[in-house]
Amino acid sequence: MRIGGVLNLLGKLIIILSLMLLTPIPFSLYYNDGMISTFLISSTLGLAIGSVFILVFLPEKDLGYKDGFAIVALSWMGLALLGALPYVLHGNIPSFIDALFESMSGFTTTGSTILTDIEILPKSLLFWRSMTHWLGGMGIILLTLAILPLLGIGGMQLFQAEVPGPTKDKLAPRIHDTARILWSVYLLLTIVETGLLMLGGVDFFNALTHSFATLATGGFSNFNASLGHYQSNYVQYVVIIFMFLAGVNFSLHFMALRGKLSAYWKSEEFVFYVLIIFFATMSIFAVRAVNDHDLNMVLNFRDVLFQVVSIITTTGFGTEDFDLWPPFCRMLLVALMFVGGCAGSTGGGIKVVRLLLFFKYARLQLHKLIHPRQIETIKLGKIKVPQEVMISILGFFAIYLAVFVIASLLITMLGVDIVTGLTSVIATLNNIGPGLNLVGPTQNFSHLPALAKLILIFCMLAGRLELYTIAILFTPGYWLMTRKPLFRWTKKKA
Amino acid sequence: MRIGGVLNLLGKLIIILSLMLLTPIPFSLYYNDGMISTFLISSTLGLAIGSVFILVFLPEKDLGYKDGFAIVALSWMGLALLGALPYVLHGNIPSFIDALFESMSGFTTTGSTILTDIEILPKSLLFWRSMTHWLGGMGIILLTLAILPLLGIGGMQLFQAEVPGPTKDKLAPRIHDTARILWSVYLLLTIVETGLLMLGGVDFFNALTHSFATLATGGFSNFNASLGHYQSNYVQYVVIIFMFLAGVNFSLHFMALRGKLSAYWKSEEFVFYVLIIFFATMSIFAVRAVNDHDLNMVLNFRDVLFQVVSIITTTGFGTEDFDLWPPFCRMLLVALMFVGGCAGSTGGGIKVVRLLLFFKYARLQLHKLIHPRQIETIKLGKIKVPQEVMISILGFFAIYLAVFVIASLLITMLGVDIVTGLTSVIATLNNIGPGLNLVGPTQNFSHLPALAKLILIFCMLAGRLELYTIAILFTPGYWLMTRKPLFRWTKKKA
Repeated sequence: MRIGGVLNLLGKLIIILSLMLLTPIPFSLYYNDGMISTFLISSTLGLAIGSVFILVFLPEKDLGYKDGFAIVALSWMGLALLGALPYVLHGNIPSFIDALFESMSGFTTTGSTILTDIEILPKSLLFWRSMTHWLGGMGIILLTLAILPLLGIGGMQLFQAEVPGPTKDKLAPRIHDTARILWSVYLLLTIVETGLLMLGGVDFFNALTHSFATLATGGFSNFNASLGHYQSNYVQYVVIIFMFLAGVNFSLHFMALRGKLSAYWKSEEFVFYVLIIFFATMSIFAVRAVNDHDLNMVLNFRDVLFQVVSIITTTGFGTEDFDLWPPFCRMLLVALMFVGGCAGSTGGGIKVVRLLLFFKYARLQLHKLIHPRQIETIKLGKIKVPQEVMISILGFFAIYLAVFVIASLLITMLGVDIVTGLTSVIATLNNIGPGLNLVGPTQNFSHLPALAKLILIFCMLAGRLELYTIAILFTPGYWLMTRKPLFRWTKKKA
Repeated sequence: MRIGGVLNLLGKLIIILSLMLLTPIPFSLYYNDGMISTFLISSTLGLAIGSVFILVFLPEKDLGYKDGFAIVALSWMGLALLGALPYVLHGNIPSFIDALFESMSGFTTTGSTILTDIEILPKSLLFWRSMTHWLGGMGIILLTLAILPLLGIGGMQLFQAEVPGPTKDKLAPRIHDTARILWSVYLLLTIVETGLLMLGGVDFFNALTHSFATLATGGFSNFNASLGHYQSNYVQYVVIIFMFLAGVNFSLHFMALRGKLSAYWKSEEFVFYVLIIFFATMSIFAVRAVNDHDLNMVLNFRDVLFQVVSIITTTGFGTEDFDLWPPFCRMLLVALMFVGGCAGSTGGGIKVVRLLLFFKYARLQLHKLIHPRQIETIKLGKIKVPQEVMISILGFFAIYLAVFVIASLLITMLGVDIVTGLTSVIATLNNIGPGLNLVGPTQNFSHLPALAKLILIFCMLAGRLELYTIAILFTPGYWLMTRKPLFRWTKKKA
């Protein structure tokens, strides 16, 4: 590994984040919440660390395949550490592990919180909290649509963003182009949601921060009641629509914005995503209606749709305490927690497309029993799915299962009850936010033992980075491998 | 499909079962429990139905591939229906669904019960209850080691019993030979366990019936306290040893009995099975010890080992209410419920070998990320696992997941709480017996809604028949397929 080059790049990212640490200052000035020094100190510290990295480690022109994994893992860990600083300095979250939990939950767009009372936090710190979501979301889009396909991870090869760009062997400009285009879409959607929320009477501060959390499918809200704070139908439906959009592959939005609206319906994953939301909403709506005849049906529909979209996109906003809903509703919501958004969205979870291909695979197997001599391939839309993509996805399931079981066992070993332990792992590994029981929608993660929080921090990171990226670091072979050039951050000579 | 030939064969199986329905009569005479007429009527009715089948439908010399699936599914359903008769006629279980549940639970060697008080049942009916286990176990050994490999199901091709037999194309004699040899091992182990239990002071009746339930990894006991009825260390360790043996591939026992004791250690699956039991026992033992300092350590070890072996082999005998154990212990036991025994044992569940191959696969994927050009295959012991076996196993997981999620959702839809609903599906789909909460080890399934019982009956059947056998019946293609000869029940001309 060219560790120097990796750390140099990390230094640059740290400096960018340090500059972002200055963005809450205008809010601090406006609300006069006395947080200016906190952010100045954090930013200065970050700039110092970043500069040291850049000065000590020389940039590398050719970063290799192996370095790609290290950059991805290190940058999320490094940024989460730096992002935790304001929480610690301010003193509201004195425990460093709690601060790291909150920060990692932000950058991984999970939305699980250890705060028992969110509303007492200074506005500028709340802004920073939402900002970690938004930056994390930007990172994820780039990661899943530009970087992971290059690394050949977990079937993400299928979803390399089809953006206009230079020829194939000029990878660095390609990454830059992809980033520019997809981030424009991301920024545009954020601005539109902020505007629409303000039209509904939400003030600028809350409109902006909640848009950050929506587009990143994060789930941090500035209110203890989460989105339940706004009882306006308009506001809730705006948030539902933008959560829904955030759970869609951003390349599709890009194509749609260029006029190809049909891109949505041609995407089999998108159609499946819509169908899941439709059937889940309808069945939960029906079961709730049967169980409680006094329920207002219009409100029931809104709340159920909100919760289904919030969970499948792994946003984790709440309007209702779904832990009080009938068992079937909770069960289906837990099942949806595993699904997650579409590939190339900011949503977490297993991803709709992986499940879709998994079941196509099962159908193919049954078909093969009946027609053993027929050679059949799996198709996604019109594209044949190569065997190695299927195999990579199936490996993903195995790693997912291993992390899920081991993490749940470790957490219950610390004395946490089964439902809380299981759903806290589900909620973090899939980057959702709330789980059930003691980590349910009206609860938080503060009461968990410190060791459990560390395990959940690991789950957030592993889930967010599509598991392979983290799992490979635990493989001895990774540390022994020789260099293979893959990234070229400079233009290759023709 | 040669439906006539299939039904003729079913008729023969019904007649065999009808004759088995006479076996409880000696016990009825001895204990004078007034059940003679019940069994005579059941048997006569069975003989009549079987005879009708045989007289109406002509035997087929060549049964096809498609017929294989129908025979497997129909025979388990038919025998469970006939086996439920004594429960209904006796009147102790007046509800037909309850009787079918108990009977299916017997034949699938699940061991879930709807009886609230087992001990009030007449002895001869208890004998029949255990007999259904034993017969089911015989069926399973034949199914997994001789029939499913022929049908190419779920990776079972790997485990075709390596018994001496005629040449490959004479399949019927091969099935007969396999059956004869493996059933001898099964019978021998049953006799030995019965003898050993009697040496420990257990009376003949209970020694025999509990041996039936052990070797079949069934779990029906004649006592409300299950095996907790016997507090003797000797009896409990005898049962532990035989549960352990019943969870091992019966071909290995056969080889061991012929002097090749090394067959055990050469089987990677066996070694993995032993390792899981070892580590699970040790960690649960340790966590219980830390949580309760007053616990008798010798008793703790015995109880934990018993429970671990009982659950991983999917027997489901209980000595302790593990639903009261610390969360980690319950969590690990639930995880073990999915594991199940070795392939070719009477145990249910996913099977150790499938999990082993699944994780080997994940490791291979990580390896491939590091060495993309290297071509690697997965090995089990010294045997290369063909790609189609891996693919078949992965299809198994997909079907498993689908059945699991849908069944759990349907059951909670009926108002059953999540833990009860989830673990009742886990307990039946994996053919274990007890779950947690309202279907925990000291509880039973009687209070569930009738529809939930029907779903669980389906789960028992689907799980027991390795899912594919049942799933294929839901495939339109199956009903449209043309005949392919596979079974030849008569000797082929040379």
